[in-house]
Amino acid sequence: MTATSTPKARTPMVPDPVPVLAVVGVGLIGGSFAQALREAGAVGQVLGVGRNTASLEEARALGLIDEIATLASAAARADVILLATPVAALGPTLSAMLPHLRAGAILTDAGSTKQDVVAAARDALGERVGCFVPGHPIAGSHASGPAAAHAGLYRGRDVVLAPLPENADADVARVQALWETCGATVRRLDPATHDSVFAAVSHLPHWLAAAYMAQIALSDDAALRLGLAGTGFRDFTRIAGGSPEMWRDIFLSNKTAMLRELDALRAVLERAEHALRDEDGEALLQWLTLASDARRNWQENLR
Amino acid sequence: MTATSTPKARTPMVPDPVPVLAVVGVGLIGGSFAQALREAGAVGQVLGVGRNTASLEEARALGLIDEIATLASAAARADVILLATPVAALGPTLSAMLPHLRAGAILTDAGSTKQDVVAAARDALGERVGCFVPGHPIAGSHASGPAAAHAGLYRGRDVVLAPLPENADADVARVQALWETCGATVRRLDPATHDSVFAAVSHLPHWLAAAYMAQIALSDDAALRLGLAGTGFRDFTRIAGGSPEMWRDIFLSNKTAMLRELDALRAVLERAEHALRDEDGEALLQWLTLASDARRNWQENLR
Repeated sequence: MTATSTPKARTPMVPDPVPVLAVVGVGLIGGSFAQALREAGAVGQVLGVGRNTASLEEARALGLIDEIATLASAAARADVILLATPVAALGPTLSAMLPHLRAGAILTDAGSTKQDVVAAARDALGERVGCFVPGHPIAGSHASGPAAAHAGLYRGRDVVLAPLPENADADVARVQALWETCGATVRRLDPATHDSVFAAVSHLPHWLAAAYMAQIALSDDAALRLGLAGTGFRDFTRIAGGSPEMWRDIFLSNKTAMLRELDALRAVLERAEHALRDEDGEALLQWLTLASDARRNWQENLR
Repeated sequence: MTATSTPKARTPMVPDPVPVLAVVGVGLIGGSFAQALREAGAVGQVLGVGRNTASLEEARALGLIDEIATLASAAARADVILLATPVAALGPTLSAMLPHLRAGAILTDAGSTKQDVVAAARDALGERVGCFVPGHPIAGSHASGPAAAHAGLYRGRDVVLAPLPENADADVARVQALWETCGATVRRLDPATHDSVFAAVSHLPHWLAAAYMAQIALSDDAALRLGLAGTGFRDFTRIAGGSPEMWRDIFLSNKTAMLRELDALRAVLERAEHALRDEDGEALLQWLTLASDARRNWQENLR
């Protein structure tokens, strides 16, 4: 397989069409990937694989996939396979596919953590790990399932690829071109940096919002508190409504980076609390200004 | 002065018009109060008082106030006075007004904390503290200043009154009727309960969002992190962009309740971190589910 597309192109362009694409886990993430590529004319046939038959039937009825397939059959037939399963399911899925995997197939994933995914892929694929290009699209929604999938989900979003030393450059470029065809900007990070960055900007906010929400729920006057909560509370806690199972898996799979971020946060919280106990208005103002400036600059840079 | 309005009416109704209303601090909060009452035909003349002459001129040009007045003159002429100043300025403002205060005048405030406001009012007003009805409108915006003021700011919002034992029922009813005329729902809480509830649902989220944002800003790879932050980060940190001075004052004035909430949160965070260190998926799932359920129920109840 050759990649004739320009890997760094920012304008979406149609790469060599993928004759057969397989998506394992046809929900919001996998379904939107298939739909975006189909609309761009970048795929031939789309196979859908999953444990939930009703969900697969729905994906087929919606036109996200052409055919429901088994892991073995998808492995034998697909040129490109996107694994959009929970992180914990990745290793077993790869193991089940390995004996059937066609030569030249490229596999990639959509998991929120990368070091554990790489470890699971190495365990499962052994010498053939070079066909697996680790990835993480930074997109989501509170909606989930095939019905929530749409071709525009990745437009203007970031996708991180965390290539392995064993990956062929052409395979990484192929995966990058497909994401760019979906409208995303692709950035490359090594797996450890990826996990550290996302522990900081994604996993820690969820952890704090959930801990805060649990504290409110456990308080004696929870009903009174919740009855007077306003728009600041609404935005601050929005992410705490996410799937407990998914977040448990993310925290466990990114434990080391999470514990490091929690340590760093604790140091900031302790200094701030110390300033409050001492009624040190100058110290309070200093860190509140640092936070406010950083937040405002970030918002400005988005425009 | 008599109050003929029904204090608990939920449908806004026009109370006895206020012949002369004074607003000290004609920004978003004070200006919107004046504008809402004017549109409802509930005020005669509106006096504006403040330290910033340009801001007062702007308020007059916008029609929020009819006349710029001094503290002494407003105290001598106004039937109702709203103090929409920073909490720290409340005591000195009341002290300056006291010698000039006309008989029967009703004063109220819009401060985010109530125990310290009550203490400052007692210190400043002494035996005349009964004319001061402590209040807190739960409304705001990222915009500020007279230009941001509008008659609809309080529509559908909550206003908490924290009456003093010294307040005449008729005066509390009068203040309540004015806020209801602005479209707000009035709830009554004692000052300690008010401060505890708002430490929990408003001040602690700001504290956490700011500490988190400061941690990101202080990290070695801040630019990389901020470049990959997404919509969860955006919502979680929005409140951290608020005024550092205002929040310093709020934290200092609500120190006791804040330290109590920080203790309670630390206990939840420590249990959660313990579960993560032990890779105790069941314990993680339990508190994440508690948080997710509480957040979803809250959102449902809003509809």
